[in-house]
Amino acid sequence: MTVHAFDAAIALAPQGDGVWQGHTSPAYANMIGPFGGITAAQALNAVLQHPQRLGEPVAFTLNFAAALHDGAFAALSRPARTNRSTQHWVVELRQGEQTVATATAVTALRRETWGATEATLPEVPRPADVLPPSRAGRVEWLNRYDMRFIDGGFPPVWDGADEQDSRTQLWMRDNPPRPLDFASLTALADVFFPRIWRRRAKLTPLGTVSMTVYFHCSAAQLQATGTGYLLGQAQAQAFRDGYFDQTAQLWNEAGHLLATTHQVVYYKE
Amino acid sequence: MTVHAFDAAIALAPQGDGVWQGHTSPAYANMIGPFGGITAAQALNAVLQHPQRLGEPVAFTLNFAAALHDGAFAALSRPARTNRSTQHWVVELRQGEQTVATATAVTALRRETWGATEATLPEVPRPADVLPPSRAGRVEWLNRYDMRFIDGGFPPVWDGADEQDSRTQLWMRDNPPRPLDFASLTALADVFFPRIWRRRAKLTPLGTVSMTVYFHCSAAQLQATGTGYLLGQAQAQAFRDGYFDQTAQLWNEAGHLLATTHQVVYYKE
Repeated sequence: MTVHAFDAAIALAPQGDGVWQGHTSPAYANMIGPFGGITAAQALNAVLQHPQRLGEPVAFTLNFAAALHDGAFAALSRPARTNRSTQHWVVELRQGEQTVATATAVTALRRETWGATEATLPEVPRPADVLPPSRAGRVEWLNRYDMRFIDGGFPPVWDGADEQDSRTQLWMRDNPPRPLDFASLTALADVFFPRIWRRRAKLTPLGTVSMTVYFHCSAAQLQATGTGYLLGQAQAQAFRDGYFDQTAQLWNEAGHLLATTHQVVYYKE
Repeated sequence: MTVHAFDAAIALAPQGDGVWQGHTSPAYANMIGPFGGITAAQALNAVLQHPQRLGEPVAFTLNFAAALHDGAFAALSRPARTNRSTQHWVVELRQGEQTVATATAVTALRRETWGATEATLPEVPRPADVLPPSRAGRVEWLNRYDMRFIDGGFPPVWDGADEQDSRTQLWMRDNPPRPLDFASLTALADVFFPRIWRRRAKLTPLGTVSMTVYFHCSAAQLQATGTGYLLGQAQAQAFRDGYFDQTAQLWNEAGHLLATTHQVVYYKE
Protein backbone atom coordinates (compact mmCIF):
# COMPACT_ATOMS: atom_id res chain seq x y z
CA MET A 1 0.00 0.00 0.00
CA THR A 2 1.37 3.38 -1.01
CA VAL A 3 1.29 6.17 1.55
CA HIS A 4 -0.49 9.30 0.25
CA ALA A 5 1.85 12.29 -0.14
CA PHE A 6 -0.30 14.21 2.35
CA ASP A 7 0.04 11.54 5.03
CA ALA A 8 3.79 11.36 4.44
CA ALA A 9 4.02 15.15 4.69
CA ILE A 10 2.16 15.53 8.00
CA ALA A 11 3.74 12.49 9.71
CA LEU A 12 5.20 13.32 13.12
CA ALA A 13 7.61 11.17 15.11
CA PRO A 14 6.83 11.43 18.85
CA GLN A 15 9.82 12.51 20.95
CA GLY A 16 7.82 12.34 24.21
CA ASP A 17 6.37 15.06 26.44
CA GLY A 18 4.42 16.83 23.70
CA VAL A 19 7.42 17.16 21.38
CA TRP A 20 7.23 15.80 17.84
CA GLN A 21 9.62 15.73 14.94
CA GLY A 22 8.39 16.48 11.46
CA HIS A 23 9.98 17.27 8.10
CA THR A 24 9.16 19.67 5.32
CA SER A 25 7.94 17.84 2.23
CA PRO A 26 9.27 18.46 -1.31
CA ALA A 27 5.83 17.37 -2.57
CA TYR A 28 4.32 20.49 -0.98
CA ALA A 29 7.09 22.98 -1.79
CA ASN A 30 6.08 26.58 -2.48
CA MET A 31 8.21 29.37 -3.98
CA ILE A 32 9.97 30.05 -0.67
CA GLY A 33 9.48 27.35 1.96
CA PRO A 34 6.51 24.98 2.06
CA PHE A 35 2.83 25.56 1.16
CA GLY A 36 1.34 27.25 4.27
CA GLY A 37 -1.57 24.80 4.34
CA ILE A 38 0.77 21.85 4.90
CA THR A 39 2.51 23.70 7.77
CA ALA A 40 -0.91 24.36 9.30
CA ALA A 41 -1.86 20.68 8.92
CA GLN A 42 1.43 19.61 10.55
CA ALA A 43 0.85 21.95 13.51
CA LEU A 44 -2.75 20.74 13.94
CA ASN A 45 -1.49 17.16 13.73
CA ALA A 46 0.66 17.79 16.82
CA VAL A 47 -2.65 18.34 18.64
CA LEU A 48 -4.54 15.51 16.89
CA GLN A 49 -1.79 12.99 17.76
CA HIS A 50 -1.42 14.12 21.37
CA PRO A 51 -2.42 11.31 23.81
CA GLN A 52 -4.19 13.80 26.11
CA ARG A 53 -6.44 15.27 23.41
CA LEU A 54 -10.10 15.71 24.34
CA GLY A 55 -12.62 15.79 21.48
CA GLU A 56 -12.30 17.24 17.98
CA PRO A 57 -11.02 20.59 16.66
CA VAL A 58 -13.40 23.55 16.84
CA ALA A 59 -10.98 26.46 16.24
CA PHE A 60 -7.38 26.60 15.05
CA THR A 61 -5.11 29.61 14.52
CA LEU A 62 -1.64 29.45 13.03
CA ASN A 63 0.80 32.38 12.85
CA PHE A 64 3.56 32.03 10.26
CA ALA A 65 6.61 33.57 11.97
CA ALA A 66 9.16 32.72 9.25
CA ALA A 67 9.54 30.69 6.07
CA LEU A 68 10.52 27.14 7.08
CA HIS A 69 13.76 26.00 5.52
CA ASP A 70 13.88 22.51 4.01
CA GLY A 71 14.42 19.80 6.58
CA ALA A 72 13.37 18.80 10.08
CA PHE A 73 11.32 20.84 12.54
CA ALA A 74 10.13 20.25 16.09
CA ALA A 75 6.46 20.65 16.96
CA LEU A 76 5.68 21.36 20.62
CA SER A 77 2.04 20.96 21.68
CA ARG A 78 0.62 21.30 25.17
CA PRO A 79 -2.89 21.44 26.62
CA ALA A 80 -2.90 24.79 28.47
CA ARG A 81 -6.32 24.08 29.96
CA THR A 82 -8.61 21.06 30.02
CA ASN A 83 -12.25 21.59 30.98
CA ARG A 84 -15.10 19.07 31.10
CA SER A 85 -15.86 19.30 27.40
CA THR A 86 -13.30 21.75 25.94
CA GLN A 87 -9.53 21.88 25.77
CA HIS A 88 -7.16 24.75 24.91
CA TRP A 89 -3.90 24.06 23.11
CA VAL A 90 -0.71 26.03 22.57
CA VAL A 91 1.60 24.88 19.76
CA GLU A 92 4.98 26.06 18.54
CA LEU A 93 7.03 24.92 15.54
CA ARG A 94 10.79 25.35 15.81
CA GLN A 95 13.82 24.89 13.62
CA GLY A 96 17.02 24.93 15.69
CA GLU A 97 16.60 27.67 18.29
CA GLN A 98 14.16 29.64 16.12
CA THR A 99 10.37 29.74 16.38
CA VAL A 100 8.96 29.41 12.87
CA ALA A 101 5.24 29.25 13.76
CA THR A 102 2.97 29.69 16.77
CA ALA A 103 -0.52 28.24 16.99
CA THR A 104 -3.48 27.77 19.30
CA ALA A 105 -6.34 25.30 19.05
CA VAL A 106 -9.59 24.60 20.82
CA THR A 107 -10.84 21.02 20.82
CA ALA A 108 -14.20 19.94 22.22
CA LEU A 109 -16.57 17.06 22.79
CA ARG A 110 -19.51 18.18 20.67
CA ARG A 111 -23.08 17.03 21.00
CA GLU A 112 -26.07 17.35 18.75
CA THR A 113 -28.04 20.60 19.07
CA TRP A 114 -30.35 22.80 17.02
CA GLY A 115 -28.44 23.90 13.94
CA ALA A 116 -28.70 26.15 10.90
CA THR A 117 -26.52 27.36 8.06
CA GLU A 118 -26.67 30.99 6.92
CA ALA A 119 -23.81 30.79 4.42
CA THR A 120 -25.40 28.36 1.99
CA LEU A 121 -23.75 26.64 -0.97
CA PRO A 122 -23.83 29.03 -3.95
CA GLU A 123 -25.44 27.89 -7.18
CA VAL A 124 -22.53 26.50 -9.16
CA PRO A 125 -21.97 23.81 -11.80
CA ARG A 126 -21.09 20.31 -10.57
CA PRO A 127 -17.36 19.42 -10.37
CA ALA A 128 -17.55 17.09 -13.39
CA ASP A 129 -18.79 20.02 -15.49
CA VAL A 130 -15.82 22.26 -14.64
CA LEU A 131 -12.47 21.79 -16.39
CA PRO A 132 -9.25 21.46 -14.40
CA PRO A 133 -6.48 23.95 -15.34
CA SER A 134 -4.64 22.79 -18.45
CA ARG A 135 -1.09 23.39 -17.22
CA ALA A 136 0.96 21.95 -14.37
CA GLY A 137 1.41 24.32 -11.42
CA ARG A 138 4.40 26.62 -11.35
CA VAL A 139 5.17 25.42 -7.83
CA GLU A 140 5.09 21.82 -6.69
CA TRP A 141 2.27 21.97 -4.11
CA LEU A 142 -0.24 23.08 -6.75
CA ASN A 143 0.11 19.61 -8.29
CA ARG A 144 -1.10 18.06 -5.01
CA TYR A 145 -4.58 19.51 -5.53
CA ASP A 146 -7.26 18.99 -8.12
CA MET A 147 -8.65 22.53 -8.58
CA ARG A 148 -11.55 23.36 -10.85
CA PHE A 149 -12.10 27.11 -11.04
CA ILE A 150 -15.67 28.24 -11.53
CA ASP A 151 -15.10 31.95 -11.10
CA GLY A 152 -12.09 34.14 -10.33
CA GLY A 153 -9.32 31.81 -11.49
CA PHE A 154 -5.71 32.84 -12.09
CA PRO A 155 -5.61 36.01 -14.22
CA PRO A 156 -5.19 35.03 -17.92
CA VAL A 157 -2.69 37.88 -18.28
CA TRP A 158 -0.69 39.58 -15.53
CA ASP A 159 -1.35 43.09 -16.80
CA GLY A 160 -2.00 44.87 -13.50
CA ALA A 161 -5.63 45.56 -14.40
CA ASP A 162 -7.78 46.34 -11.34
CA GLU A 163 -10.34 43.53 -11.38
CA GLN A 164 -12.71 45.40 -8.98
CA ASP A 165 -13.21 42.38 -6.75
CA SER A 166 -11.18 39.44 -5.45
CA ARG A 167 -13.72 36.62 -5.23
CA THR A 168 -12.81 33.08 -6.29
CA GLN A 169 -15.02 29.98 -6.40
CA LEU A 170 -13.53 26.56 -7.10
CA TRP A 171 -14.10 22.88 -6.56
CA MET A 172 -11.05 21.30 -4.95
CA ARG A 173 -9.74 18.10 -3.42
CA ASP A 174 -6.47 16.27 -2.81
CA ASN A 175 -4.72 14.91 -5.89
CA PRO A 176 -4.78 11.93 -5.91
CA PRO A 177 -8.07 11.82 -3.97
CA ARG A 178 -7.76 11.10 -0.24
CA PRO A 179 -10.58 10.72 2.32
CA LEU A 180 -11.15 14.07 4.05
CA ASP A 181 -10.13 14.58 7.69
CA PHE A 182 -9.40 17.56 9.97
CA ALA A 183 -5.77 17.82 8.84
CA SER A 184 -6.54 17.82 5.11
CA LEU A 185 -9.49 20.19 5.58
CA THR A 186 -7.09 22.60 7.34
CA ALA A 187 -4.67 22.45 4.40
CA LEU A 188 -7.54 22.94 1.92
CA ALA A 189 -8.49 26.13 3.80
CA ASP A 190 -5.21 27.62 2.50
CA VAL A 191 -5.48 26.45 -1.14
CA PHE A 192 -6.89 29.74 -2.48
CA PHE A 193 -4.23 31.67 -4.35
CA PRO A 194 -3.50 35.15 -2.92
CA ARG A 195 -6.46 37.54 -3.22
CA ILE A 196 -4.22 40.44 -4.29
CA TRP A 197 -3.06 38.46 -7.36
CA ARG A 198 -6.71 37.92 -8.23
CA ARG A 199 -7.65 41.55 -7.63
CA ARG A 200 -4.68 43.23 -9.30
CA ALA A 201 -3.56 40.68 -11.92
CA LYS A 202 -0.05 41.36 -10.60
CA LEU A 203 2.44 38.94 -8.99
CA THR A 204 3.07 41.03 -5.86
CA PRO A 205 5.49 39.39 -3.36
CA LEU A 206 3.57 38.30 -0.24
CA GLY A 207 3.17 35.79 2.58
CA THR A 208 0.37 34.74 4.94
CA VAL A 209 1.08 35.86 8.51
CA SER A 210 -1.93 34.43 10.34
CA MET A 211 -4.70 31.97 9.50
CA THR A 212 -7.73 30.77 11.46
CA VAL A 213 -10.04 27.82 10.72
CA TYR A 214 -13.40 27.21 12.42
CA PHE A 215 -14.69 23.66 12.04
CA HIS A 216 -18.46 23.21 11.65
CA CYS A 217 -18.25 19.44 11.30
CA SER A 218 -17.54 16.17 13.09
CA ALA A 219 -15.04 13.46 12.10
CA ALA A 220 -18.07 11.39 11.01
CA GLN A 221 -19.23 14.15 8.60
CA LEU A 222 -15.73 14.39 7.14
CA GLN A 223 -15.67 10.62 6.71
CA ALA A 224 -19.04 10.82 4.93
CA THR A 225 -17.58 13.50 2.61
CA GLY A 226 -14.86 11.02 1.72
CA THR A 227 -12.94 11.85 -1.45
CA GLY A 228 -15.61 14.19 -2.82
CA TYR A 229 -14.88 17.76 -3.90
CA LEU A 230 -15.21 20.79 -1.66
CA LEU A 231 -16.52 24.07 -2.95
CA GLY A 232 -14.22 26.84 -1.80
CA GLN A 233 -15.18 30.50 -1.93
CA ALA A 234 -12.77 33.23 -0.89
CA GLN A 235 -12.72 37.02 -0.96
CA ALA A 236 -10.73 39.86 0.58
CA GLN A 237 -12.48 42.54 2.61
CA ALA A 238 -9.61 45.06 2.70
CA PHE A 239 -6.13 45.67 1.28
CA ARG A 240 -4.36 48.29 3.40
CA ASP A 241 -0.75 49.36 4.10
CA GLY A 242 0.90 46.04 3.35
CA TYR A 243 -1.71 43.60 4.67
CA PHE A 244 -4.93 42.19 3.25
CA ASP A 245 -7.43 39.75 4.70
CA GLN A 246 -9.23 36.77 3.18
CA THR A 247 -12.52 35.32 4.35
CA ALA A 248 -13.55 31.94 2.96
CA GLN A 249 -16.04 29.08 3.20
CA LEU A 250 -15.69 25.38 2.37
CA TRP A 251 -18.75 23.23 1.61
CA ASN A 252 -18.93 19.59 0.57
CA GLU A 253 -20.88 18.50 -2.51
CA ALA A 254 -23.92 17.71 -0.33
CA GLY A 255 -23.98 21.39 0.64
CA HIS A 256 -22.75 21.09 4.24
CA LEU A 257 -20.61 24.05 5.35
CA LEU A 258 -17.64 22.16 6.82
CA ALA A 259 -15.36 25.09 7.67
CA THR A 260 -15.08 28.86 7.60
CA THR A 261 -11.61 30.36 7.50
CA HIS A 262 -9.82 33.69 7.57
CA GLN A 263 -6.31 34.85 7.02
CA VAL A 264 -4.23 38.00 6.91
CA VAL A 265 -1.47 38.26 4.33
CA TYR A 266 1.53 40.58 3.99
CA TYR A 267 2.08 42.14 0.56
CA LYS A 268 4.93 44.24 -0.65
CA GLU A 269 3.49 47.06 -2.71
CA MET B 1 -8.80 64.44 35.58
CA THR B 2 -10.98 61.36 35.84
CA VAL B 3 -9.67 58.09 34.42
CA HIS B 4 -12.07 56.55 31.89
CA ALA B 5 -13.54 53.22 33.08
CA PHE B 6 -11.95 51.51 30.06
CA ASP B 7 -8.46 52.76 30.93
CA ALA B 8 -8.92 51.72 34.56
CA ALA B 9 -10.11 48.27 33.41
CA ILE B 10 -7.18 47.51 31.08
CA ALA B 11 -4.45 48.95 33.33
CA LEU B 12 -1.59 46.51 33.89
CA ALA B 13 1.07 46.77 36.57
CA PRO B 14 4.44 45.55 35.23
CA GLN B 15 6.01 42.77 37.34
CA GLY B 16 9.08 42.54 35.06
CA ASP B 17 10.11 39.98 32.45
CA GLY B 18 6.89 40.13 30.43
CA VAL B 19 4.63 39.53 33.43
CA TRP B 20 1.86 41.98 34.25
CA GLN B 21 -0.79 42.15 36.93
CA GLY B 22 -4.31 43.17 36.01
CA HIS B 23 -7.71 43.04 37.72
CA THR B 24 -11.19 42.24 36.51
CA SER B 25 -13.37 45.35 36.48
CA PRO B 26 -16.88 45.52 38.01
CA ALA B 27 -17.66 48.21 35.39
CA TYR B 28 -17.36 45.52 32.66
CA ALA B 29 -19.04 42.63 34.50
CA ASN B 30 -21.04 40.15 32.42
CA MET B 31 -23.46 37.48 33.66
CA ILE B 32 -20.62 35.09 34.57
CA GLY B 33 -17.17 36.68 34.67
CA PRO B 34 -16.23 39.80 32.70
CA PHE B 35 -17.29 40.97 29.21
CA GLY B 36 -15.04 39.03 26.81
CA GLY B 37 -14.09 42.19 24.94
CA ILE B 38 -12.45 43.65 28.06
CA THR B 39 -10.47 40.43 28.62
CA ALA B 40 -9.32 40.61 24.99
CA ALA B 41 -8.29 44.26 25.43
CA GLN B 42 -6.35 43.39 28.62
CA ALA B 43 -4.49 40.57 26.82
CA LEU B 44 -3.67 42.81 23.85
CA ASN B 45 -2.52 45.50 26.28
CA ALA B 46 0.13 43.08 27.61
CA VAL B 47 1.58 43.22 24.08
CA LEU B 48 1.01 46.97 23.56
CA GLN B 49 2.77 47.80 26.85
CA HIS B 50 5.71 45.45 26.27
CA PRO B 51 9.00 47.40 25.97
CA GLN B 52 10.19 45.11 23.12
CA ARG B 53 7.13 45.65 20.94
CA LEU B 54 7.79 46.30 17.26
CA GLY B 55 5.11 48.16 15.30
CA GLU B 56 1.33 48.00 15.62
CA PRO B 57 -1.15 45.11 15.84
CA VAL B 58 -2.10 43.38 12.57
CA ALA B 59 -3.74 40.19 13.91
CA PHE B 60 -4.86 39.12 17.38
CA THR B 61 -6.47 35.87 18.51
CA LEU B 62 -7.77 35.22 22.02
CA ASN B 63 -9.01 31.85 23.27
CA PHE B 64 -11.25 32.00 26.34
CA ALA B 65 -10.24 28.95 28.39
CA ALA B 66 -12.41 29.66 31.43
CA ALA B 67 -14.60 32.37 32.96
CA LEU B 68 -12.33 34.70 34.96
CA HIS B 69 -13.34 35.01 38.58
CA ASP B 70 -13.43 38.51 40.10
CA GLY B 71 -10.02 39.74 41.17
CA ALA B 72 -6.42 39.77 40.04
CA PHE B 73 -4.92 37.95 37.07
CA ALA B 74 -1.41 37.66 35.65
CA ALA B 75 -0.77 38.41 31.97
CA LEU B 76 2.35 36.82 30.48
CA SER B 77 3.45 38.16 27.08
CA ARG B 78 6.57 37.20 25.15
CA PRO B 79 7.82 37.88 21.64
CA ALA B 80 8.29 34.37 20.20
CA ARG B 81 9.91 35.75 17.05
CA THR B 82 11.08 39.18 15.96
CA ASN B 83 11.75 39.77 12.27
CA ARG B 84 12.79 42.94 10.48
CA SER B 85 9.26 44.31 10.22
CA THR B 86 7.01 41.75 11.97
CA GLN B 87 6.82 40.29 15.44
CA HIS B 88 4.97 37.23 16.78
CA TRP B 89 3.58 37.23 20.32
CA VAL B 90 2.36 34.52 22.67
CA VAL B 91 0.20 35.61 25.61
CA GLU B 92 -1.36 33.75 28.50
CA LEU B 93 -3.68 35.01 31.25
CA ARG B 94 -3.56 33.13 34.56
CA GLN B 95 -5.41 33.15 37.84
CA GLY B 96 -3.49 31.21 40.49
CA GLU B 97 -2.12 28.11 38.78
CA GLN B 98 -4.87 28.06 36.15
CA THR B 99 -4.69 29.31 32.56
CA VAL B 100 -7.84 31.35 31.87
CA ALA B 101 -6.96 32.56 28.36
CA THR B 102 -4.37 32.00 25.66
CA ALA B 103 -3.62 34.48 22.89
CA THR B 104 -1.34 35.19 19.98
CA ALA B 105 -0.66 38.47 18.21
CA VAL B 106 1.22 39.68 15.17
CA THR B 107 2.55 43.24 15.23
CA ALA B 108 4.23 44.94 12.29
CA LEU B 109 5.84 48.09 11.02
CA ARG B 110 3.43 48.98 8.21
CA ARG B 111 4.13 51.19 5.26
CA GLU B 112 1.92 52.81 2.69
CA THR B 113 0.98 50.64 -0.31
CA TRP B 114 -1.74 50.31 -2.91
CA GLY B 115 -5.01 49.71 -1.07
CA ALA B 116 -8.67 48.93 -1.66
CA THR B 117 -11.74 48.05 0.37
CA GLU B 118 -14.16 45.37 -0.85
CA ALA B 119 -16.38 45.34 2.24
CA THR B 120 -17.73 48.87 1.96
CA LEU B 121 -19.83 50.75 4.51
CA PRO B 122 -23.49 49.75 4.04
CA GLU B 123 -26.08 52.47 3.43
CA VAL B 124 -27.36 53.24 6.90
CA PRO B 125 -28.82 56.26 8.72
CA ARG B 126 -26.35 58.52 10.58
CA PRO B 127 -25.81 57.81 14.32
CA ALA B 128 -27.74 60.94 15.37
CA ASP B 129 -30.80 59.61 13.53
CA VAL B 130 -30.81 56.27 15.38
CA LEU B 131 -32.23 56.02 18.91
CA PRO B 132 -30.25 54.40 21.71
CA PRO B 133 -32.05 51.54 23.55
CA SER B 134 -34.49 52.94 26.10
CA ARG B 135 -33.54 50.67 29.01
CA ALA B 136 -30.36 50.15 31.01
CA GLY B 137 -28.49 46.95 30.18
CA ARG B 138 -29.29 43.81 32.14
CA VAL B 139 -25.56 43.34 32.75
CA GLU B 140 -23.15 46.08 33.75
CA TRP B 141 -20.83 46.11 30.72
CA LEU B 142 -23.71 47.00 28.38
CA ASN B 143 -23.84 50.39 30.13
CA ARG B 144 -20.23 51.06 29.07
CA TYR B 145 -21.28 51.27 25.41
CA ASP B 146 -23.51 53.63 23.48
CA MET B 147 -25.25 51.25 21.05
CA ARG B 148 -27.68 52.40 18.40
CA PHE B 149 -29.27 49.46 16.63
CA ILE B 150 -30.17 50.00 13.00
CA ASP B 151 -31.17 46.44 12.20
CA GLY B 152 -31.24 43.16 14.11
CA GLY B 153 -31.42 44.53 17.66
CA PHE B 154 -32.35 42.49 20.73
CA PRO B 155 -35.51 40.47 20.05
CA PRO B 156 -38.57 42.44 21.31
CA VAL B 157 -39.96 39.17 22.71
CA TRP B 158 -38.03 36.01 23.55
CA ASP B 159 -40.54 33.67 21.94
CA GLY B 160 -38.16 31.24 20.25
CA ALA B 161 -39.25 32.31 16.75
CA ASP B 162 -36.73 31.39 14.05
CA GLU B 163 -35.72 34.78 12.66
CA GLN B 164 -34.21 33.25 9.46
CA ASP B 165 -31.01 35.26 9.70
CA SER B 166 -28.70 36.58 12.41
CA ARG B 167 -27.46 39.89 11.01
CA THR B 168 -27.10 42.96 13.22
CA GLN B 169 -26.07 46.49 12.25
CA LEU B 170 -25.43 49.12 14.92
CA TRP B 171 -23.55 52.31 15.59
CA MET B 172 -21.45 51.97 18.72
CA ARG B 173 -18.82 53.70 20.82
CA ASP B 174 -17.55 53.82 24.38
CA ASN B 175 -19.89 55.40 26.93
CA PRO B 176 -18.79 57.99 27.90
CA PRO B 177 -16.97 58.66 24.61
CA ARG B 178 -13.23 57.88 24.59
CA PRO B 179 -10.73 58.38 21.74
CA LEU B 180 -10.39 55.11 19.81
CA ASP B 181 -7.20 53.03 20.05
CA PHE B 182 -6.20 49.41 19.36
CA ALA B 183 -7.31 48.22 22.81
CA SER B 184 -10.77 49.80 22.64
CA LEU B 185 -11.25 48.69 19.01
CA THR B 186 -10.52 45.11 20.15
CA ALA B 187 -13.17 45.36 22.87
CA LEU B 188 -15.66 46.87 20.40
CA ALA B 189 -15.13 43.82 18.15
CA ASP B 190 -16.86 41.76 20.87
CA VAL B 191 -19.79 44.12 21.56
CA PHE B 192 -22.26 42.28 19.29
CA PHE B 193 -24.72 40.27 21.38
CA PRO B 194 -24.70 36.53 20.64
CA ARG B 195 -25.89 35.66 17.13
CA ILE B 196 -27.94 32.71 18.36
CA TRP B 197 -30.05 35.01 20.57
CA ARG B 198 -30.68 37.16 17.49
CA ARG B 199 -31.48 34.18 15.27
CA ARG B 200 -33.66 32.19 17.69
CA ALA B 201 -35.10 34.88 20.00
CA LYS B 202 -34.15 32.53 22.83
CA LEU B 203 -31.71 33.13 25.73
CA THR B 204 -29.60 30.01 25.14
CA PRO B 205 -26.64 29.65 27.59
CA LEU B 206 -23.35 30.23 25.74
CA GLY B 207 -19.81 31.56 25.81
CA THR B 208 -17.24 32.71 23.25
CA VAL B 209 -14.33 30.24 22.99
CA SER B 210 -12.11 31.97 20.41
CA MET B 211 -12.00 35.41 18.82
CA THR B 212 -9.75 36.91 16.13
CA VAL B 213 -9.34 40.56 15.12
CA TYR B 214 -7.56 41.75 11.96
CA PHE B 215 -6.60 45.43 12.04
CA HIS B 216 -6.82 47.34 8.76
CA CYS B 217 -5.72 50.65 10.31
CA SER B 218 -2.85 52.58 11.85
CA ALA B 219 -2.74 54.32 15.24
CA ALA B 220 -3.00 57.60 13.32
CA GLN B 221 -6.25 56.50 11.63
CA LEU B 222 -7.67 55.48 15.00
CA GLN B 223 -6.67 58.85 16.41
CA ALA B 224 -8.42 60.55 13.49
CA THR B 225 -11.55 58.50 14.24
CA GLY B 226 -11.44 59.92 17.76
CA THR B 227 -14.68 59.59 19.72
CA GLY B 228 -16.84 59.06 16.64
CA TYR B 229 -19.16 56.10 16.24
CA LEU B 230 -18.22 52.81 14.55
CA LEU B 231 -20.65 50.94 12.39
CA GLY B 232 -20.61 47.30 13.41
CA GLN B 233 -22.11 44.57 11.27
CA ALA B 234 -22.16 40.94 12.41
CA GLN B 235 -23.64 37.68 11.15
CA ALA B 236 -23.26 33.95 11.80
CA GLN B 237 -22.40 31.60 8.95
CA ALA B 238 -23.23 28.32 10.72
CA PHE B 239 -24.76 26.99 13.96
CA ARG B 240 -23.77 23.35 14.38
CA ASP B 241 -23.51 20.83 17.26
CA GLY B 242 -22.93 23.32 20.06
CA TYR B 243 -20.82 25.94 18.28
CA PHE B 244 -21.62 28.85 15.98
CA ASP B 245 -19.38 31.40 14.30
CA GLN B 246 -19.68 35.17 13.89
CA THR B 247 -18.07 37.23 11.15
CA ALA B 248 -18.10 41.01 11.57
CA GLN B 249 -16.84 44.32 10.21
CA LEU B 250 -16.21 47.66 11.94
CA TRP B 251 -16.14 50.92 9.94
CA ASN B 252 -15.74 54.49 11.20
CA GLU B 253 -18.21 57.22 10.21
CA ALA B 254 -15.91 58.28 7.37
CA GLY B 255 -16.38 54.79 5.87
CA HIS B 256 -12.92 53.34 6.61
CA LEU B 257 -12.99 49.62 7.39
CA LEU B 258 -10.89 49.62 10.59
CA ALA B 259 -11.18 45.96 11.57
CA THR B 260 -12.67 42.64 10.54
CA THR B 261 -13.30 40.08 13.25
CA HIS B 262 -14.47 36.52 13.76
CA GLN B 263 -15.40 34.39 16.70
CA VAL B 264 -16.65 30.95 17.54
CA VAL B 265 -19.12 30.57 20.40
CA TYR B 266 -20.28 27.58 22.44
CA TYR B 267 -24.05 27.21 22.89
CA LYS B 268 -25.95 24.74 25.00
CA GLU B 269 -28.93 23.55 22.99
